[in-house]
Amino acid sequence: MSQPQPWELQARKAKDILENSIPKQWLLPEDKFPPAEEKSVIDFPRKSGLLTERELGITELSATALVAEMGAGELSAEEVVVAFLKRSVLGHQLFNFATEFMADKAIARAKELDEYYQRTGKLVGPLHGVPISVKEHVGIKGLTCNAGFVAWADQVATEDALLLQCLEKAGAVFHVRTNQPQSLMHLDCSNNLTGTTLNPHNRTLSPGGSSGGEGASTGFKCAPLGVGSDIGGSIRAPAAFSGSYGLKTTALRNPMTGIKAAGPGQESIRGVIGPLASQSIEDLELFQQVIIDQEPWDVETSLAPVPWKRATPTRDITVGIMWDDGTVRPHPPIIRALKYAKEKLMAAGIKIVDWEPYKHDHGWEIVSAMYFADGTEAQQTVLKQSGEPYLPLTKWAFQYSSGTPLTVSENWALNYARDHYRDEYHALMKSRGVDFILAPTYLGVAAVLGEPQYWNYTAIWNILDQPAVVFPSGLVVDEELDKAEEGYQPRNAADEREWKKYRPERYVGAPIGLQLVGKRFKDEEVLAAAKVVEEVLGAEASKDIN
Amino acid sequence: MSQPQPWELQARKAKDILENSIPKQWLLPEDKFPPAEEKSVIDFPRKSGLLTERELGITELSATALVAEMGAGELSAEEVVVAFLKRSVLGHQLFNFATEFMADKAIARAKELDEYYQRTGKLVGPLHGVPISVKEHVGIKGLTCNAGFVAWADQVATEDALLLQCLEKAGAVFHVRTNQPQSLMHLDCSNNLTGTTLNPHNRTLSPGGSSGGEGASTGFKCAPLGVGSDIGGSIRAPAAFSGSYGLKTTALRNPMTGIKAAGPGQESIRGVIGPLASQSIEDLELFQQVIIDQEPWDVETSLAPVPWKRATPTRDITVGIMWDDGTVRPHPPIIRALKYAKEKLMAAGIKIVDWEPYKHDHGWEIVSAMYFADGTEAQQTVLKQSGEPYLPLTKWAFQYSSGTPLTVSENWALNYARDHYRDEYHALMKSRGVDFILAPTYLGVAAVLGEPQYWNYTAIWNILDQPAVVFPSGLVVDEELDKAEEGYQPRNAADEREWKKYRPERYVGAPIGLQLVGKRFKDEEVLAAAKVVEEVLGAEASKDIN
Repeated sequence: MSQPQPWELQARKAKDILENSIPKQWLLPEDKFPPAEEKSVIDFPRKSGLLTERELGITELSATALVAEMGAGELSAEEVVVAFLKRSVLGHQLFNFATEFMADKAIARAKELDEYYQRTGKLVGPLHGVPISVKEHVGIKGLTCNAGFVAWADQVATEDALLLQCLEKAGAVFHVRTNQPQSLMHLDCSNNLTGTTLNPHNRTLSPGGSSGGEGASTGFKCAPLGVGSDIGGSIRAPAAFSGSYGLKTTALRNPMTGIKAAGPGQESIRGVIGPLASQSIEDLELFQQVIIDQEPWDVETSLAPVPWKRATPTRDITVGIMWDDGTVRPHPPIIRALKYAKEKLMAAGIKIVDWEPYKHDHGWEIVSAMYFADGTEAQQTVLKQSGEPYLPLTKWAFQYSSGTPLTVSENWALNYARDHYRDEYHALMKSRGVDFILAPTYLGVAAVLGEPQYWNYTAIWNILDQPAVVFPSGLVVDEELDKAEEGYQPRNAADEREWKKYRPERYVGAPIGLQLVGKRFKDEEVLAAAKVVEEVLGAEASKDIN
Repeated sequence: MSQPQPWELQARKAKDILENSIPKQWLLPEDKFPPAEEKSVIDFPRKSGLLTERELGITELSATALVAEMGAGELSAEEVVVAFLKRSVLGHQLFNFATEFMADKAIARAKELDEYYQRTGKLVGPLHGVPISVKEHVGIKGLTCNAGFVAWADQVATEDALLLQCLEKAGAVFHVRTNQPQSLMHLDCSNNLTGTTLNPHNRTLSPGGSSGGEGASTGFKCAPLGVGSDIGGSIRAPAAFSGSYGLKTTALRNPMTGIKAAGPGQESIRGVIGPLASQSIEDLELFQQVIIDQEPWDVETSLAPVPWKRATPTRDITVGIMWDDGTVRPHPPIIRALKYAKEKLMAAGIKIVDWEPYKHDHGWEIVSAMYFADGTEAQQTVLKQSGEPYLPLTKWAFQYSSGTPLTVSENWALNYARDHYRDEYHALMKSRGVDFILAPTYLGVAAVLGEPQYWNYTAIWNILDQPAVVFPSGLVVDEELDKAEEGYQPRNAADEREWKKYRPERYVGAPIGLQLVGKRFKDEEVLAAAKVVEEVLGAEASKDIN
């Protein structure tokens, strides 16, 4: 028997943290598990018998509804967090989405909240008692923070991320930390620390990434709200793949202090931190309101001091539908969902036009060069520290870099091109009279594990820095309706690669998410518009669809 | 006789543009000039006999007052611009501040405005008929834009800078373009194109830089408002040296589209464009209000969409006085002005504390490395294109660079350090209860020509990205009161160099400006507070001081 490699010993630390943190009293015995060949486990909470009816009911409520119930004294924070903890433990056994449970602390915190409520008759804040799952690289004081790198398995955060401080002040309870891919740069969710997270709708599929643990968490209702981050699609792909909701805000709105990633100070393409939600767009709004109302720019001064407006949903909007980005043609389920949306929206009297994408290939050239302007040095330095093996999708992402660092001058030229492209795109939306763009989130539904390779249905809105909301269309893949397009002539190698992946039977059970994109800094408006679109689509989430 | 060098032929183009543009009818014959040894020409407009009493009166009005008079039908836009043009031509003959006059266009525009007013009884906008001088590197459609480089002497701007578009929409009239130093990176104002601009208060002194032409323009009342730019002090040094007003805004407020400089896309340290004013802080506010009320972020999407608030001046503020930055001790006149301010402010019941500077040397290390992160490649490429000689202060600035480009990774580390430093500084202001910092603008009053070498009384607020207003203290250098400090033991080489420069007789006539600094994005508040401070100091500008 061979000795474990040093990196394996180091990775073991993260596994130990996870295993030691699991509340053993709620573990389901292995013989009660669904068979491995049962792809979808989305129904399993009820089948498992682990949760009471009341607990099942609690976990199917939105954050907004939970707060209302707690405010009315109908629910206690303690029973709420216990219900979500039980569902989380179950979920973790089924699809490996957690990196660490914080059960004792969460329950203690919930008891404090209950005590406060009993004493004062008031809620602590607008998130009183709401359990929130948190992507692992968002630092929590005293806990390790590895950001998907084995080398960092024992690095401890010295304070809570500023965003978590804001959430906590509003009453949130953090009960579980969630998985992310090696280097954070996959639209998938696999690392050498705690392994691979699966999609609860179909365990042969990816939950998306890099906030894949959050996709699975909110998709399975382990939490009504989750904290993810997004520099190329890392909130949105998980939300779409997992049948939940997600918001990528405009940059410089939510505070980034205390978030760990390789290459701090890189700001040509800014990552954002933001919410995923299991139940509603309203909950994404609630999350944002809580953060921005606390004026985080008074601590993190680089933020834009833009208050959170209360935007009223209206049907007096023009929505452009982007059918295709011109590079990789979306798979049949996505096109079906867009057609469905178009019909429904037109029938509801909303003005619909086709949105011709504008130089998305150019946008991709800029953003892909920016991801690793240092020639991947920041990431590779950390990978080499431990000697952990490079995962295939890490290698895949690294090839976006030319392999050698850009010069500062080259980086400046890209910044300039980026700003010009943003201004052009914005001017085009104005001149075409388009308020919002309804678009695919990804070329297809949830990718097969290991297969998400094409980023530009999401990354384009990062380089453009436009806010984007992902929500379930209410449709799921249908083997009859979503047959593969035969005799298609691919436009290029990427198009061919993605087209070849598609056979409907590979994607059974996958929800179809859509993405609504707004203008820069119109985060409030795009959420309000997404509510309208979702309402018109008649889909209150994929929650009834298995 | 030797042949002119190719660069001299190229530079000649800029000289020709200037010379051909001067309205010859208003030139003062050389025999009417004050003698060369007469240092101050600040009184000369009245003495010259060139301007009528009415014209002299017009040029002594603020922009706010001018608009009010035009709104009341008391003044025409045409007579206003003619008065300022005459004063500008005179000023140019005395201290060489213009790069191009736009007399015909300005007069034609003024006539249009008058015609509009006569037809409608209304003003075009809040800057109706206000003549504004414009630093040369702020592009004007169809005119050359050289940014202080001989190589660019024949580069033509294809559109007006966005900021100028906003000003023009509000009714502004652009009548003269103004001088700047080679490479734009001096706190002085000399180049190989149109030469050296002098300080109207003392022609052996610098008008400041890089917006030195604007300092001279507003200091001599060639325009009530001017457009300058500032990445290390380039609005504030000219305002202070020339006895006028200046505002360096927080970055990302005023639009930068259409401004020419070497190294576009450099954004680690952002330059800003903003106003200088000859008469009042109120005019700086007017300028800002006009720009921001037009929501320039709807065109230049990288701006922060932060509306312009109307801030009310209040004495309920705490002002920290920064006596010294800890590296280079200010000259006696500056210390005297700060003491004077402290007494007056305390007597007025304003809370005053001492402000201990926080790691300004660290701030300088960051910002000086950022100015030329490419190892000066951007500037040197343009300099070498023409072969023009490097001016001494260009070489001086270039030594801030290590001479070799930073790597992208090094640049990221600096960005990170910068943000951390900003957050620390902001937290310190909050914890000390300080709303505003009253500080020197420069270690001394206007430097002797060629001598401004120490940047960090202004550059520190660029790296911190805090807004700063410069205004005249009402005091001028006094040979009796401002004697050199004898037996001073310099702290370091820079301190020694600057201390040795000081003998009061070198600075006769120089006004003493001060700088009030606010918190990030509190541009409105710092302007309101500066009004209070100026009012308390009882100084309505240096306009009565010669």
